[in-house]
Amino acid sequence: MGGADIERLIALLARLPGLGPRSARRAALALLRQPQTRMLPLAQAMEQAARTVRTCSTCGNLDTHDPCGICTDSARDRGLVCVVETVGDLWALERAGVHRGVYQVLGGTLSALSGTGPDDLNLAPLLARLEEGGVREVILALGATVEGAATAHWLQDRLAGFDVPVSRVGQGVPMGGGALDVLDDGTLAAALTARKIYS
Amino acid sequence: MGGADIERLIALLARLPGLGPRSARRAALALLRQPQTRMLPLAQAMEQAARTVRTCSTCGNLDTHDPCGICTDSARDRGLVCVVETVGDLWALERAGVHRGVYQVLGGTLSALSGTGPDDLNLAPLLARLEEGGVREVILALGATVEGAATAHWLQDRLAGFDVPVSRVGQGVPMGGGALDVLDDGTLAAALTARKIYS
Repeated sequence: MGGADIERLIALLARLPGLGPRSARRAALALLRQPQTRMLPLAQAMEQAARTVRTCSTCGNLDTHDPCGICTDSARDRGLVCVVETVGDLWALERAGVHRGVYQVLGGTLSALSGTGPDDLNLAPLLARLEEGGVREVILALGATVEGAATAHWLQDRLAGFDVPVSRVGQGVPMGGGALDVLDDGTLAAALTARKIYS
Repeated sequence: MGGADIERLIALLARLPGLGPRSARRAALALLRQPQTRMLPLAQAMEQAARTVRTCSTCGNLDTHDPCGICTDSARDRGLVCVVETVGDLWALERAGVHRGVYQVLGGTLSALSGTGPDDLNLAPLLARLEEGGVREVILALGATVEGAATAHWLQDRLAGFDVPVSRVGQGVPMGGGALDVLDDGTLAAALTARKIYS
């Protein structure tokens, strides 16, 4: 329709999560309509990020510094390490502002299907921190999936030798999640098991 | 979370149509995970397109050449000019492969709300083509909206002096659009008015 350059732009945009071929075309058009004010700034932001952003060697977060801003923040509690699957999970917890400690990003979960084994997970920095001492609790904030549960189970075993309490985030009815009848059986079972008695 | 460079990338991605703040974060993460194989190629495709893509001075299409590939394609019928609102509409017709003539992209519709008047529409090249002669029909393929209808009406008047038939695309029940009871009243009225007698 508009030459190879436009087709290539659309094809690359369509590979972004959340954009399909149709919305990629709409996005390409929006960018092409404002090449100087929209397309070039985005291209430059991408090049800048590709050049400056690196993985934190301590926790696995993405940042322009290594160690990252969270690991170097003296206001954060290094004794409380929250283990998450992905950087996206870390960002979600940070947006919620509910964890004042530090993190360990595994980079995935144990999965026989995708062939992810213990050696593929970014666990070594956490083990090093545990050996150094000073860690008072490891919180497992893994997804409530089969892989997440298997990984949590394996981590419990793996961390048992360190004499540090290992906890996992609560499971149950999500806040604002609406009626019980739309929840799956697993969530309902977890919510009943995790029930609290009013005192 | 990950410094100003990441925040800036997310903010710019979130301005793309089809991406909100949430999906922009997912897209940014996907790009940051593969800076060399995904982020830089996309950034380069954007810069390349911003540098090479221009608006066709004949029809208003976007292409790396001016006049565009459609206007210079000798296999296309220059006597048949299809008037559309946006380049996206032109692309949609090209994908469908249903128009073998050329185009005129207005760049919008008459709209009192957004303050778009006749002078804001890209009509001059069409008038020049009509004055040159050789145009056998002008097909108005404008949206079935209030603005589209107003623009079509105004175009009919504006082009009346040229002694060239002006048509508009058919309106009615969309193909594969499912049951009649989900269609709005306007579409049903248009479909009844545009009924054809089996001969």
